Amino acid sequence: MNAPVKAPEASAKEALVLFMPSGKRGRFPVGTPVLDAARTLGVYVESVCGGRGICGRCQVEVQEGQFAKHGITSSNEHISEFGPKEQRYAEKRDLKEGRRLSCSATILGDLVVDVPHDVQVNAQVVRKDADTRIIERNPAVHMCYVEVEEPDMHKPLGDLDRLKAALEKEWGVRNLEVDAHILPNVQKILRKGEWGVTAAIYQDEETSRPTMIGLWPGLKNEAYGIACDIGSTTIAMHLSSLLSVRTIASAGTSNPQIRFGEDLMSRVSYVMMNPDGREGMTQAVREAINGLIDKVCAEGGVAREDILDAVFVGNPIMHHLFLGIDPTELGGAPFALAVSGAVHLKATDIGLAMNAGTRVYMLPCIAGHVGADAAAATLAEGPHRQDEMMLLVDVGTNAEIVLGNRHRTVAASSPTGPAFEGAEISGGQRAAPGAIERVRIDPVTLEPRFRVIGTEQWSDEAGFAEAVQASGITGICGSAIIEVIAEMYLSGIISEDGVVDGALAAKSPRVRATGRTFSYLLHEGSPTIIITQNDVRAIQLAKAALYAGVKLLMDKLGIDHVDQIRFAGAFGSFIDPKYAMVLGLIPDCDLDKVLAVGNAAGTGARMALLNRNYRREIEDTVTRIEKIETALEPKFQQHFVYAMAMPNKIDPFPKLSLAVTLPPRKNVSEDGIAGDATPRRRSREDRAARRNRE
Amino acid sequence: MNAPVKAPEASAKEALVLFMPSGKRGRFPVGTPVLDAARTLGVYVESVCGGRGICGRCQVEVQEGQFAKHGITSSNEHISEFGPKEQRYAEKRDLKEGRRLSCSATILGDLVVDVPHDVQVNAQVVRKDADTRIIERNPAVHMCYVEVEEPDMHKPLGDLDRLKAALEKEWGVRNLEVDAHILPNVQKILRKGEWGVTAAIYQDEETSRPTMIGLWPGLKNEAYGIACDIGSTTIAMHLSSLLSVRTIASAGTSNPQIRFGEDLMSRVSYVMMNPDGREGMTQAVREAINGLIDKVCAEGGVAREDILDAVFVGNPIMHHLFLGIDPTELGGAPFALAVSGAVHLKATDIGLAMNAGTRVYMLPCIAGHVGADAAAATLAEGPHRQDEMMLLVDVGTNAEIVLGNRHRTVAASSPTGPAFEGAEISGGQRAAPGAIERVRIDPVTLEPRFRVIGTEQWSDEAGFAEAVQASGITGICGSAIIEVIAEMYLSGIISEDGVVDGALAAKSPRVRATGRTFSYLLHEGSPTIIITQNDVRAIQLAKAALYAGVKLLMDKLGIDHVDQIRFAGAFGSFIDPKYAMVLGLIPDCDLDKVLAVGNAAGTGARMALLNRNYRREIEDTVTRIEKIETALEPKFQQHFVYAMAMPNKIDPFPKLSLAVTLPPRKNVSEDGIAGDATPRRRSREDRAARRNRE
Repeated sequence: MNAPVKAPEASAKEALVLFMPSGKRGRFPVGTPVLDAARTLGVYVESVCGGRGICGRCQVEVQEGQFAKHGITSSNEHISEFGPKEQRYAEKRDLKEGRRLSCSATILGDLVVDVPHDVQVNAQVVRKDADTRIIERNPAVHMCYVEVEEPDMHKPLGDLDRLKAALEKEWGVRNLEVDAHILPNVQKILRKGEWGVTAAIYQDEETSRPTMIGLWPGLKNEAYGIACDIGSTTIAMHLSSLLSVRTIASAGTSNPQIRFGEDLMSRVSYVMMNPDGREGMTQAVREAINGLIDKVCAEGGVAREDILDAVFVGNPIMHHLFLGIDPTELGGAPFALAVSGAVHLKATDIGLAMNAGTRVYMLPCIAGHVGADAAAATLAEGPHRQDEMMLLVDVGTNAEIVLGNRHRTVAASSPTGPAFEGAEISGGQRAAPGAIERVRIDPVTLEPRFRVIGTEQWSDEAGFAEAVQASGITGICGSAIIEVIAEMYLSGIISEDGVVDGALAAKSPRVRATGRTFSYLLHEGSPTIIITQNDVRAIQLAKAALYAGVKLLMDKLGIDHVDQIRFAGAFGSFIDPKYAMVLGLIPDCDLDKVLAVGNAAGTGARMALLNRNYRREIEDTVTRIEKIETALEPKFQQHFVYAMAMPNKIDPFPKLSLAVTLPPRKNVSEDGIAGDATPRRRSREDRAARRNRE
Repeated sequence: MNAPVKAPEASAKEALVLFMPSGKRGRFPVGTPVLDAARTLGVYVESVCGGRGICGRCQVEVQEGQFAKHGITSSNEHISEFGPKEQRYAEKRDLKEGRRLSCSATILGDLVVDVPHDVQVNAQVVRKDADTRIIERNPAVHMCYVEVEEPDMHKPLGDLDRLKAALEKEWGVRNLEVDAHILPNVQKILRKGEWGVTAAIYQDEETSRPTMIGLWPGLKNEAYGIACDIGSTTIAMHLSSLLSVRTIASAGTSNPQIRFGEDLMSRVSYVMMNPDGREGMTQAVREAINGLIDKVCAEGGVAREDILDAVFVGNPIMHHLFLGIDPTELGGAPFALAVSGAVHLKATDIGLAMNAGTRVYMLPCIAGHVGADAAAATLAEGPHRQDEMMLLVDVGTNAEIVLGNRHRTVAASSPTGPAFEGAEISGGQRAAPGAIERVRIDPVTLEPRFRVIGTEQWSDEAGFAEAVQASGITGICGSAIIEVIAEMYLSGIISEDGVVDGALAAKSPRVRATGRTFSYLLHEGSPTIIITQNDVRAIQLAKAALYAGVKLLMDKLGIDHVDQIRFAGAFGSFIDPKYAMVLGLIPDCDLDKVLAVGNAAGTGARMALLNRNYRREIEDTVTRIEKIETALEPKFQQHFVYAMAMPNKIDPFPKLSLAVTLPPRKNVSEDGIAGDATPRRRSREDRAARRNRE
């Protein structure tokens, strides 16, 4: 791919040009504008003004030095001096040191040319986004400035027809379609721009015709897009420039559908029970999204009308409700999606107010329970782009699980329920100031120490009481639930089967009888926070469901281990991979290959927004992902039973064992009486050794 | 083109099949369904059900006999007997004697197969339309019945995606796009149809992707379209079946924009003077069209939702106002159209209520004053399809003129003003009961006789007075104005320059002084109807403008005569070609080659509705028509001056002279005093001879 495009026998009048970061290179006659060379090689350099040197979008930078590997000595001597167009631009618009306009600068000798990924032209506030991933730019919308012939009685072609002719001549746009809303304004805009106008040309798929979706007088040197992940709990949106790759603003809001039902199935039930339930929820989510658009526009100083493209992802039920589709079919077997493929719409089709021509793209859904959000996360993390076997999990009330590599990818969902989010847990709460977020238990004394959101100190450190005064200690959030139960297991308070060992009540006042079972006192106060046998059971059920789903996928691929694990979503960002593995939430894996990747679905949506190749990539990938319906797999039940144990009844965790000493097997019956202590992987001595290490 | 498709060396197992009326033929293995043979040859046979024998759209008829020219002996013995599908259809639906379902009937031997142009399946009221032209069917919308796989948890493709797969498999529809309004209803419709549904697939241009614009449960065996000509005075609409070519209903209404201005320029002025003028007129015409849709639907017993395609034509100002485009630019040089090419829209884009997916097509405009109506008339009359030179004129307040043949076509408009419609004429009125419509003047006595709309008798016949009593004699309409002035000229009352000969006042009391000029008394009564010198002048100005425009086009083509003349529009339907030629409205031509073709624009719209090939034909033709802006042509003034004379100052009318004896030149000054009578083509004796012949 990186071989020079032209024959290697270079004449004296040709030069070798290498573009970075793409690595594409070729030989070009001396005098060729750098932009032309880039286009010839398929290097994506933006240009709105069509080489007039006024938009400043085509900036490049010459890298100076010897590039022995490529046989190139690159120097600013090998590019033409500032021409009049660049002079004029630099005077007016402040061209950064070292930057050149590739439409004006011509090749004089061998060059290594850097195409910066974020050419900043307008003094736009740019958000330092958590996700600093560089996305190569190839959006579905292009801004094309043209100068149109004035009307001539002898050639009575209409104004729009001459505009089309100019777009074909200058930009190679053939068979252009035109949005209806533009027709009444064409003449006004052409005259206001004195026959110079910028057209927004939308073309997503190769098989579609390009469409003029917007038209502005003069040079319109900005265009924006939004990428939005519609979660059942939270809606997150990014506003990006389609001309640089910059994220201009980000915002989130809670999904107002929560008032119709906390989790997905209760929302489906609401639709089934209420004649106008679907419409109410569709309106609610669209209003929230319109509100978010306001928010990102205000933050970014961008007009809504300048948003021309939008990408949405969400789980199947969010996806359907957003599109106005009744999700009832998703509530029961065979869980039929109304549409699984990617969806193209106009924003006005679904009541979103941006530009009259704004387009909407929704990523495909993988299956009835594995949505466009999972597809977007897959796109972001790219298991299908690598050789290593990646497990990608997005934990929510439904865990979406994707497992695979470039050869084969499988996906499933597993009904984990809301325990991981703190629901169904006696002291559980959402992650918020006052919530316990980290827990350690001394394996000898069984005394806990913990940290609370909003406070730096641990509970056994000086100044903790003062620090925590403001928020109080209000409950225990998802990440800490994982940790406290894992620590209870590691310290022997619960057996591998999850039974609280009542015998320890004699040793520690923190282990106490609660009715017929025992519980562990984490914090005495107001409220008092205890971990009950039921809490342990709830987490066991949730983690067993997730693990069993993962195992089914591993069975499908015939593998006994995974190389990488990625946690997508908010939950994954706060839990400690080690404790997740001790609990047996995820299979054994090198701990440093377990990563939290944040809102991967949002990142995938942003990728699809900024580069349409990613749309084709995920559409193609989704058709090749094999879907496993966990409910239909006879082995699910067995995997689930084994997975109730910590970390697992039968699966070894050799890599975890390198980092953590797992306790020996300890059988305790439900009433808290320990039976035979069957030594498992480590002896009691090991356990003491571990205590000493800590 | 008509050579057999397969190699001529026929095996015993092949048969030669000729389809009529297309004349396409080919050899096919015995046992081939007739429908498959038709499709292979590109013969357009409709089928909605995809060969299931339930829609009945694919009917054909075997022609029996020897077809020596084609070497075929065709017989019903050479087609398979009624199969079970045909039996079932015939029992249920009444299959006409001799008709076969081509999807079921197979080829057994050589056949001549007739594809009837109007397969009637539903008991639809069919209107005997004035225009009985047969239009070959190839609409932009196809109805495709498919049976869709039920959802399967193991293959979680969405319902829509499986529907698309079925359409691709059964109908070869690839890269299908789907209208947004269908998404929320897909699941309901599939389940209601028990997985059998009919999709309406729209594809006009080859370069566009097919689009699903409608979806119905089960077999939907009808689809309709409307063709509409938006005239400045009258709006006319036809409702046609897209599956047969039948016209189901026709209706007309006056254009409510008349309240904003009688003629085109006054409507443009209204827009220029009133900030909401454009919007008011756009709303008015759209409302009128919505009303007409109601009317044709009621007449045809068709639901609005079953109208899936619509074609509109109109002059440039009607075209722009209908589309919501400000027509101000058309009010002055350079008369720039906002858009001249064909326009594709959705009906909902312009506030027309039919189906949510209904498409709208507007024919291209030829120039700033020669609109989509002229393009449609051109399509209907087809000068570009023949060798003979055709003059096509649509006379209104602006005459649109097209002249040409297959080699070259030119077009112009000429500002004739409203005189031909009876405006600006002292006794003028619209064609309505009571209006004089025919006039003869005795060249000796100068006494007139006339006929009145609504009455059979001439005014000198018995019973006229009684017959006319109901309506009265209220004025003179356009056709009679042409006749009375031509007759005044033929009888010597006016000179060839149009001056009323005051000397005749001595001879006849009907010629009388009116101020400084003379006039002719046509009818004494209430009202008294006289033809004034001003009336003559108004008609002279109008006819000179038209003739001068025609002459410019003839100049452009370098021709001195035309082979055919076609009058489009209502005006043309009532005037007598002979009198139009005597007056010099149109150039000399064989009188039997002068035809009134009625609403040719409406016919052209109907052709474009029923066969998309006609859309491509007229789009292509319009780009090749050369446009003449009469105002810019230096010779226009001179042609105009010559054309003020009757029939013309310098042009001979040899063909007209074979039918009518034109009077000798008679110079009369404006005050009615005859000067030298210069003998012209015929002597006074000839004039007497003519009188004797009549």
